[in-house]
Amino acid sequence: MSIQIVFLGTGSGKPMPQRNVSSVALFREGELFLFDCGEATQLQLTRSGLRPGAIRAIFLSHFHGDHVNGLPGLIGSLTLNQREEALDIYGPRGLRRWFKTLHELHILRPGFRVRLHEVAGPGKVFEGDGFHVATQALNHRVETWGYTLIEDQRPGRFDLEQARELGIPSGPLFGRLQRGETITLSDGRQITPSQVLGPARPGLKIAYCCDTIPCEGALELARDADLVIHEATYVAGEERSAHQRGHSTSADAARCAREAGAQRLILTHISQKHLDLHEVLRGARSIFPNTEIARDLAEFSVERKDQ
Amino acid sequence: MSIQIVFLGTGSGKPMPQRNVSSVALFREGELFLFDCGEATQLQLTRSGLRPGAIRAIFLSHFHGDHVNGLPGLIGSLTLNQREEALDIYGPRGLRRWFKTLHELHILRPGFRVRLHEVAGPGKVFEGDGFHVATQALNHRVETWGYTLIEDQRPGRFDLEQARELGIPSGPLFGRLQRGETITLSDGRQITPSQVLGPARPGLKIAYCCDTIPCEGALELARDADLVIHEATYVAGEERSAHQRGHSTSADAARCAREAGAQRLILTHISQKHLDLHEVLRGARSIFPNTEIARDLAEFSVERKDQ
Repeated sequence: MSIQIVFLGTGSGKPMPQRNVSSVALFREGELFLFDCGEATQLQLTRSGLRPGAIRAIFLSHFHGDHVNGLPGLIGSLTLNQREEALDIYGPRGLRRWFKTLHELHILRPGFRVRLHEVAGPGKVFEGDGFHVATQALNHRVETWGYTLIEDQRPGRFDLEQARELGIPSGPLFGRLQRGETITLSDGRQITPSQVLGPARPGLKIAYCCDTIPCEGALELARDADLVIHEATYVAGEERSAHQRGHSTSADAARCAREAGAQRLILTHISQKHLDLHEVLRGARSIFPNTEIARDLAEFSVERKDQ
Repeated sequence: MSIQIVFLGTGSGKPMPQRNVSSVALFREGELFLFDCGEATQLQLTRSGLRPGAIRAIFLSHFHGDHVNGLPGLIGSLTLNQREEALDIYGPRGLRRWFKTLHELHILRPGFRVRLHEVAGPGKVFEGDGFHVATQALNHRVETWGYTLIEDQRPGRFDLEQARELGIPSGPLFGRLQRGETITLSDGRQITPSQVLGPARPGLKIAYCCDTIPCEGALELARDADLVIHEATYVAGEERSAHQRGHSTSADAARCAREAGAQRLILTHISQKHLDLHEVLRGARSIFPNTEIARDLAEFSVERKDQ
C-alpha cells in the first residue's frame, strides 16, 4: 500500500508557465484529496491524468487568491461532468459566504451536493475509511489552516507459526484474534491477541503546511510524519523578510521537519524569484538532508514500511 | 491603422487543453481590452505575448463561471506586477457585490484602483480616445450584455490639388479646414471644409455577442460591423436545443451577421462536442460566406479600408 502525491501547482503568488499556483493532490485507495485549489488546478488535474471525478474532499488553507481561485471553476466542471456524489470542502471562516455570493450571482450553481465546512479549531475534520484528516492553525497574514492525513494503526502481523504451536486450529478463530478478540480453545485455554499478533503497525502520516511562518501548529502537523509538504517561499538567510510577509524559508521548513521527527520533506510554494533551486535546496538539506523540491506535475509515492 | 483580435479562450463550459474558456483580447493603439475573462485567461495572455499591464478595461458579458472565473486571479497578478493605473471593469448587476465578498474574505485585495461599473442599460459604457464601447442586452439564461467597440469617424481626406486650385496658401489654414473650420482667404473668399475634404471616413466597428440566442440586441451590436465575434455553441439544425439552453447555432450567428450587414464573422464559444469543425463552419458559410472559427491564441487583424 502506498499514497501518491501529485503536485498540481508549486509556485507562489501568480501562475507562471513552469509553476502554477498552489494545489496538491493526494491519491489514496481510489480516492483523491486536494489541498488548496489555485486557478487552473482543473487544467493541471487533466494534465496529470488524475480523474477529477475521484475527488472526495478539498482542504483550503486560507483565502488568498493563489490558493482558492480555481475552486469555482473546478466545481463548475464537475457539474458539467454530471457528478452526483457529494463533495466535502474544508476551509476558513467565510467559506459559506463566498459560495453564497457565487450562487446568488449564478457564477457557481453546483449540480451535486457541496458540503461546506468552516474549520472551527484544531483537531479532526474529516473521517475517512481507515484514516482521518486533522487540522492545526498556522501563522500567516490571514486565518490559515494546515492539514495532516493520518492513517489508522493496523493490527500487528499474525504469527502463524506461533498460532500453530499454541494449537489454535486454522479457521475463524484466527480472524477473531486478528480483530482483537480473546478466544477460548476447546481444551479451555484462553488465548489473547497479543500472544499471536506482532506490535500494531502505524499507518502513514502526511502533513501539508502552507502558508506559514514557523509555528507550533506546523510542528504538530508534521510530528513523526512520513512526509511533510511545507512552503518555502524564501531561501535560507531571508528569514526576516519571510516572516514579515508571513512566510517560511527553506531552512525554516527543514527545521520544522527535523524538530517534528519527520521522515521526508518536500518544499513547495516556490517563488519565481528563485531560479537557482540549488540555493533553495542547499539551505534546507544542511538541516534536514531528506529534502526535495516539488515541480508541477511531479509525482511522489509514500510507501508503508512494513508491508 | 488596424485592430488586433487575439482569442484567449474559445471553448464553452469547461476548459479543455485545446480550448480554454471564454476570453477575447482586443488590442488598439497600445491599449488592451478584454471581453470576458474565464479561468486561466492570465495564463493565455502570457502565452499570447500580450502584456497584461496594457489592459485598459474588461467587459464581462454575464456571470457564468466560464466567462468570469479568471478575473480575480488576473487582478491579483496585476497587483503583484505593481500595477498603478486604474482598471475599469464592466459587467452585470452584482459585480460590486462579488468584489465586496472577495475583498472581505481577502481573496482579492487589488493594489490599484479598480472601477466597477454595473451596466444599467443599453448604450455607451466606455469612452476612449477616438472610440467608444456600447452595450446591448442579449438573451441568455441570466442577465447578459454584448459589447461593440466603435471608432469615431475621421474627417475626409484633404484634397491638396483642389486646395491649390482654390488658391489656399499652404500652412495653418489647411489644418483649420481639416478640423472642420470655415476659413476666409485674404481676398475675402470663404472656403468651407467640404470644398477640400472628401467624405468622412468611418472608423472600425467590432462586436462581441456571447452568450445569446438570436435577438435584437445582437443584431444592433453587429449592425454594419467590420467584424462580429459571435458564439456558436451548437451547429446548424440544433436550433431548438440551442435556444432552450440560451445559445446560438453557427447558422444563427451567420444570420445575425448577414442581417446586420456585417463584413466578417468569427465564431467562438465552440462546444467540445463538435470535433468536426467543418460541420460548424458549413452551416454558417452557406448563409454568410465570410465566416471563420476562432482557435485559442489565434490572432486576427481588422484593417481600416481607407488608409
